[in-house]
Amino acid sequence: MHKIPVGVFGASGYAGRELCGLLANHPHFSLAFATANAQRGERAFIGGSEVRFIATDDAPLRGAELVFSALPHGASATWVERAQEHGARVVDLSSDLRPGHTSLDIPYGLTEVNRAVLSGAEVIANPGCYPTAILLSLLPLLEGGLLREDSTIVVDAASGVTGAGNSPKPELLFGEVTENYRAYGVGNEHRHLPEMRALVHRHTSAVDLLFTPHLLPVARGILATVTVQLNAPLADPLALWQSRFAGEPFVEVTDALPTLRDVQHRNVVRMTVRQAAQVRTPTLILLSAIDNLVKGAAGQAIQNANVSFGFNETAGLPR
Amino acid sequence: MHKIPVGVFGASGYAGRELCGLLANHPHFSLAFATANAQRGERAFIGGSEVRFIATDDAPLRGAELVFSALPHGASATWVERAQEHGARVVDLSSDLRPGHTSLDIPYGLTEVNRAVLSGAEVIANPGCYPTAILLSLLPLLEGGLLREDSTIVVDAASGVTGAGNSPKPELLFGEVTENYRAYGVGNEHRHLPEMRALVHRHTSAVDLLFTPHLLPVARGILATVTVQLNAPLADPLALWQSRFAGEPFVEVTDALPTLRDVQHRNVVRMTVRQAAQVRTPTLILLSAIDNLVKGAAGQAIQNANVSFGFNETAGLPR
Amino acid sequence: MHKIPVGVFGASGYAGRELCGLLANHPHFSLAFATANAQRGERAFIGGSEVRFIATDDAPLRGAELVFSALPHGASATWVERAQEHGARVVDLSSDLRPGHTSLDIPYGLTEVNRAVLSGAEVIANPGCYPTAILLSLLPLLEGGLLREDSTIVVDAASGVTGAGNSPKPELLFGEVTENYRAYGVGNEHRHLPEMRALVHRHTSAVDLLFTPHLLPVARGILATVTVQLNAPLADPLALWQSRFAGEPFVEVTDALPTLRDVQHRNVVRMTVRQAAQVRTPTLILLSAIDNLVKGAAGQAIQNANVSFGFNETAGLPR
Amino acid sequence: MHKIPVGVFGASGYAGRELCGLLANHPHFSLAFATANAQRGERAFIGGSEVRFIATDDAPLRGAELVFSALPHGASATWVERAQEHGARVVDLSSDLRPGHTSLDIPYGLTEVNRAVLSGAEVIANPGCYPTAILLSLLPLLEGGLLREDSTIVVDAASGVTGAGNSPKPELLFGEVTENYRAYGVGNEHRHLPEMRALVHRHTSAVDLLFTPHLLPVARGILATVTVQLNAPLADPLALWQSRFAGEPFVEVTDALPTLRDVQHRNVVRMTVRQAAQVRTPTLILLSAIDNLVKGAAGQAIQNANVSFGFNETAGLPR
Repeated sequence: MHKIPVGVFGASGYAGRELCGLLANHPHFSLAFATANAQRGERAFIGGSEVRFIATDDAPLRGAELVFSALPHGASATWVERAQEHGARVVDLSSDLRPGHTSLDIPYGLTEVNRAVLSGAEVIANPGCYPTAILLSLLPLLEGGLLREDSTIVVDAASGVTGAGNSPKPELLFGEVTENYRAYGVGNEHRHLPEMRALVHRHTSAVDLLFTPHLLPVARGILATVTVQLNAPLADPLALWQSRFAGEPFVEVTDALPTLRDVQHRNVVRMTVRQAAQVRTPTLILLSAIDNLVKGAAGQAIQNANVSFGFNETAGLPR
Repeated sequence: MHKIPVGVFGASGYAGRELCGLLANHPHFSLAFATANAQRGERAFIGGSEVRFIATDDAPLRGAELVFSALPHGASATWVERAQEHGARVVDLSSDLRPGHTSLDIPYGLTEVNRAVLSGAEVIANPGCYPTAILLSLLPLLEGGLLREDSTIVVDAASGVTGAGNSPKPELLFGEVTENYRAYGVGNEHRHLPEMRALVHRHTSAVDLLFTPHLLPVARGILATVTVQLNAPLADPLALWQSRFAGEPFVEVTDALPTLRDVQHRNVVRMTVRQAAQVRTPTLILLSAIDNLVKGAAGQAIQNANVSFGFNETAGLPR
Repeated sequence: MHKIPVGVFGASGYAGRELCGLLANHPHFSLAFATANAQRGERAFIGGSEVRFIATDDAPLRGAELVFSALPHGASATWVERAQEHGARVVDLSSDLRPGHTSLDIPYGLTEVNRAVLSGAEVIANPGCYPTAILLSLLPLLEGGLLREDSTIVVDAASGVTGAGNSPKPELLFGEVTENYRAYGVGNEHRHLPEMRALVHRHTSAVDLLFTPHLLPVARGILATVTVQLNAPLADPLALWQSRFAGEPFVEVTDALPTLRDVQHRNVVRMTVRQAAQVRTPTLILLSAIDNLVKGAAGQAIQNANVSFGFNETAGLPR
Repeated sequence: MHKIPVGVFGASGYAGRELCGLLANHPHFSLAFATANAQRGERAFIGGSEVRFIATDDAPLRGAELVFSALPHGASATWVERAQEHGARVVDLSSDLRPGHTSLDIPYGLTEVNRAVLSGAEVIANPGCYPTAILLSLLPLLEGGLLREDSTIVVDAASGVTGAGNSPKPELLFGEVTENYRAYGVGNEHRHLPEMRALVHRHTSAVDLLFTPHLLPVARGILATVTVQLNAPLADPLALWQSRFAGEPFVEVTDALPTLRDVQHRNVVRMTVRQAAQVRTPTLILLSAIDNLVKGAAGQAIQNANVSFGFNETAGLPR
């Protein structure tokens, strides 16, 4: 059967490798090229088969109908444009084309929110990993207008180290990360904030969002703990989430608290909600877990490509 | 030089072992006995020397001038009483005698708050590990009356597994904890809440506290991320903390974000404070780290014993 | 399409869960029941779907054409017999029916060695995890009669903690295993020795085998480092292994040193060989890695069932 | 009391930091300067106090009576010479001056072997981490002439990542090391071999040594598993080790198998010995554990400096 030839820019990073691995098992896409400037000419063993890296400049763009760009933030937009000029559809995993980062109106690939716009889209801005976990958990409250006016959404989230990429930095060495834990970007400095604010403010301008990320001594996974205040208590909060996400193939609303283990290597977001006891303002705690490299990056990128091309949305994706 | 003979109840748990290890190097205390019912008769290698466990029933209470009880919650109070009847001073590391857990008015051993009361105290309720990290970071705001009326203190905290003790439970096996992360006790169900609320409400009844603990894949350490709203912005928040804790031997106020690595095996709390950007209500994020077994348990217990007996507060404690 | 109904005894342990997960994606087998006495009535989330545990006594044996037994050593043989009496083929993952553990002559499921005997077999003794890694790496030397007379095969091997099961034992708690490493069963005391000796002595009685296992702070994976002395130096050792395993779907002979990462969640053994420099006796170092739960347990069990039933040997197995 | 001013070259690496931390608590030495070219001008928080790094070129050598060099292999010898020219005694932690690396006859600081020569020594070559663990465990056999003629000592050893230093390399990132394990330098290629061979061959030339190191997912610690063949069986092997090391303050001979946990942050080697069962040649397995940064580097360096200056050998060292 004919498969659509697909290129990957930036294939040697963690997200790029995950893309190559997923593409190796996809029923409709097949890997045509994989670029990695620093490792051009090298071969890597990914997803049970060998991938040969070429320089991005040498990418045979004419041959690709779809390109995923996992290039670094800032370097990606140019290559997205070039791939488009050659007629390829593009899913950009960098932040370059996300809301708050560009004035262009690029379809934002939070699939469960934007499916209609993504269908047939020529270019898609794939969401950041943290925003995927956080925004999906907030969705029922945002869409329902249930958040308390003038309240602040307090997000504490923790990510495994692959979220920081595989460029060697001293603070990411095993000897520094093991048995350690720390916050970073405290006070709302994180690159992912603009896209989170953009979606929140599409629904309400009366609510702030505060985001404190932390670095976990694990390889992959994000857990977000989101505390929100409501206008009024909800009788059955879990039912609201179950109803909103009924039929969604990649959203798991559970009574149990989600763990990283539940979602690793799977293209799902898993979430629950709990009422806070002994506080005067009606307050919910939302817990939301994803694999930062799958639903938070490569998996959702393929999910979006499936939607763009009109394939079954779950094609080639591990549940 | 004469050393004060000291007993440890419940010496085979993580806190009990840490106590034995610290006592082995204390200039004024020496270990007279160590109890551990399930391991009676066994010997353990702790802090560079051997400790022999006896049954708690066999403890030679007459010979001890000081007893630390690291018995389980619920089982400790009786033995604290018995040790007192034999004339020993007691530091209780269980929750039995803490505020919110008993109607008795027992001196609460958050040393930096209660030093005056602890001096000469016959019995001391040693604080829980989470409350130590959280309450000390809140202290300048509580004492200064700076928290916003009707606001909620949102505490997200994460602890290493030794906080859960060393009784074998399936969910604490290495195979379950490694590469994993999860919340627990969500919605204000944690045993440590009453003592946190008790201290907060001593200062203000107009503020709620919401506490979401998480389990980290590390052996020891707690990091608390505390989000608070203020009546008015502070020009120089860090200066407030530096001023409140000036001269405190075991409190480190730093500009840098604290990490678990900074505090492991040390009897310190290390903290900083950051202002939240892009939120309408003046908001601070407090970061506070301790070693749950040292400043959060055995170390603070010895600190309190030092104060009770009038020794140098830092005697025998690792900084 | 009709799938063969399959039962799993002891489905709540690590190997049992892995079996359930693999069976959920198998083209020819489908899970008919899963037993777990201590968790009877509970549901577990495995491999993307829910499994309900029943008591082993309640297993509907009549309905199963194939049973995998992952019951504890000593408890398994009886149930294997009972399943056979009901007409099911059985793959036993315990040590009960392995060479050296029984006087019966049960087909030993080291697939790459015994394929002919396993085809159509009614009962199969699935190899231990360590023997799988070690014996496959030794195979070219044993079959070629290349080991030095009166020499000793020195095996140092290290396993992740899932090799020890998920019964809660204090020494397997995260707090005890993290940042730790230790040998166990030193001096040839390990349960896996008889089956290793049995295969070695089928080829030669003039060679001893010494086995020192170690416990790694990882969840899954075994790396065996096998030092052997030869009668004569080999000109091109790697070629010998490549030749012996040419065409084997689950054996990867590489020039690079194998790592646990290379084999986790895959039904492969990955190995290489190096010549020792600066020693007088011709000496090789064999390095061999497997996932102890896949090629070392559940995966090889399914590989053997595929062979027994005449299916494609790779059906349903992750490479 | 007057303390001897001490300098540290290469203080920002793992061994250099450990030195600074130990010196901060030493009764007779005090840190006069700490060099780290790449971090000159920066301050680090080490061992409870702040250290300011200067360029090695700027080191005030005149003021130091003792210098520890933790510079990289190859770069150290020159600076050792320069420090000596200024009248300082030097302990060199690099391999530059170790047996097999230089034709000079520099005192080799395996303290338990060479105490007499080290007393008053002007320059000392501090042993490598692996050789410390391995040679000390072999000592009773070497000194007693008990190793079988023409046999090979088979050493499999595993080290935590700090043994590889803190220069950022991709293969040392947390994401690559966690849940992984691998051998390296297989076939006798390791830098530490010459010094091991040198000591072995001082006792016997009829025995080979084969060394296979492995990388553990832990921060610190080495466990060596050493398999040796004897001329004749030993009636009570443990007694031989206990007798050889009786009175040694930093050698722990135990019946129990040593673990990394037993030795971390301590200046000890901990070892045991077991007889191999079911092998024809009398064979022992020696297990030996150290903290690679303490007894394997900084701790032994200070132990050697204590001996050189005639101080109590245990001064300032954690047991």
